[in-house]
Amino acid sequence: MASTGTRKTTPADITAAAVASFEGCADPRLRELMQSLVRHLHGFATEVGLTEEEWREMIVTLTATGHITDARRQEFILWSDSLGLSMLVDALAHALPPGATESTVLGPFYVPGAPQRSYGESMVVEPGAGIPAWVYGRVLDVSGAPIAGAELDVWQNGADMLYAVQRPEAEEDHLRGRYLTREDGSYAFVAVRPVPYPIPDDGPVGRMLSATGRHPWRPAHIHMIVRASGYKTVTTHVFDAVSEYLDSDAVFAVKPSLFRTFVERSPDDPERPPSVDGEWVSLENDIVLARAEDGEDGGAVVDPGRTA
Amino acid sequence: MASTGTRKTTPADITAAAVASFEGCADPRLRELMQSLVRHLHGFATEVGLTEEEWREMIVTLTATGHITDARRQEFILWSDSLGLSMLVDALAHALPPGATESTVLGPFYVPGAPQRSYGESMVVEPGAGIPAWVYGRVLDVSGAPIAGAELDVWQNGADMLYAVQRPEAEEDHLRGRYLTREDGSYAFVAVRPVPYPIPDDGPVGRMLSATGRHPWRPAHIHMIVRASGYKTVTTHVFDAVSEYLDSDAVFAVKPSLFRTFVERSPDDPERPPSVDGEWVSLENDIVLARAEDGEDGGAVVDPGRTA
Repeated sequence: MASTGTRKTTPADITAAAVASFEGCADPRLRELMQSLVRHLHGFATEVGLTEEEWREMIVTLTATGHITDARRQEFILWSDSLGLSMLVDALAHALPPGATESTVLGPFYVPGAPQRSYGESMVVEPGAGIPAWVYGRVLDVSGAPIAGAELDVWQNGADMLYAVQRPEAEEDHLRGRYLTREDGSYAFVAVRPVPYPIPDDGPVGRMLSATGRHPWRPAHIHMIVRASGYKTVTTHVFDAVSEYLDSDAVFAVKPSLFRTFVERSPDDPERPPSVDGEWVSLENDIVLARAEDGEDGGAVVDPGRTA
Repeated sequence: MASTGTRKTTPADITAAAVASFEGCADPRLRELMQSLVRHLHGFATEVGLTEEEWREMIVTLTATGHITDARRQEFILWSDSLGLSMLVDALAHALPPGATESTVLGPFYVPGAPQRSYGESMVVEPGAGIPAWVYGRVLDVSGAPIAGAELDVWQNGADMLYAVQRPEAEEDHLRGRYLTREDGSYAFVAVRPVPYPIPDDGPVGRMLSATGRHPWRPAHIHMIVRASGYKTVTTHVFDAVSEYLDSDAVFAVKPSLFRTFVERSPDDPERPPSVDGEWVSLENDIVLARAEDGEDGGAVVDPGRTA
């Protein structure tokens, strides 16, 4: 007997069978997720006519991604970031009222447990970290009323383009700190002017960026997570409004509402903070928080691969 | 200044930016692949309203998949198999003429370099591997003409449900061998009747199957790759037509045209092969190969994670 004469199995038959295999899933949300994932994965492969060689290349790339990922490096999150998926998930999660400060990516360099610092205190632990910056403003609700006791959990890179967590020899509390707002909602701290930096590009994501003609750079920014009782937590950045790469952030995290201007100040400016010598800059940045809804404690993203 | 009043960044803005980031890709095929992948990944996340917690769970699952994958276990291929993607890629690649034997998955247990064996030789190296099976038939072209010198590269599991490559202590050539067809296109070998077995289910894929109410079982089958000069290589199975799980193969590899019947034979049947004692079965299975097109050497899938 040669062929049984049975009709050939088509690509559409295979997609239908894979989708149907989840019909018995008792958890309706998990069923929805798996069936949608299968439909979209199959839709991708069918649309491009994915070849066996391309499929093998994808398996090799995923395997390399798995093997470079460890407690200090999360290449799967880097894929999610560099394909815009992290920002999309952020946008889907945070439907904010008009006027509230927009969220953006947490990024891979957040480490919980930064030290609590007082109003105006410097978070520059290692000297020579960059041009000193006096960062100040208020935390407000959407009606403009000040929020006292809000916490700003702040971290940034220095002039060497690195976060402290990237340098094993670094002082661990360098360029990070937690600040509380005063009764009038005001906060202030001494930072440095941030600089653009490349995302880690010596792995599979870097090879993709290079092969597709994309660069790995992010525009200059300071990270903050702002928390206050009764309000939605916001994970956000302040972007230097004149930085390079604002129009081509490698992780699609730029939102124009987060642009702020570093103002150049002279050494003899009477507002110069006591801890600062020489040239300095200042940056004003108000944060507007939305009220939390029932049973909600806000939008802080915790990076599963990097945080303790 | 509170908000700049700039319009909010929407999910659709983020998808558009991620797609546009590949516009400068000099390789048009790579550009097509990346843009389609981004659209479908974002389409999935948007359609289901993927939450940050679900996104984190996906990152954790991918990380665990990377860490369980090694030279002997390829959990990314297992994901591809268990979501039907491997069979879809196979179906997209192999548009065969009517009558040609259909292809199906290679699976994770193929090891190149099986020994060449003579017509009718047994590939049962370890005793007690199962009920002996005389497997025979012819390799033909689509007009029914025999193909001499075609190679059948055959492997299967034994009654313990395992392939030799899964058991470190196994004889490495147990239940595998390469057979050539004779002048009339005929081939024959002694195997054992295969049994259903579960795909490896102690990792992330197994947890997905369990959480979604799917089982890990594959119906009983013998694997073969059939190669002949001037013809398309076909990677296929012979399925036991009365096996359990034919309607719910965990990897969606069942094609009804590949069902064949094991015929029970008596110990005193005069056709009993000399190497066989006691009860035995026989199975007839013709293979029909399609002519290769110019510059094509067929459809053998080489598993990047498992082959040497």
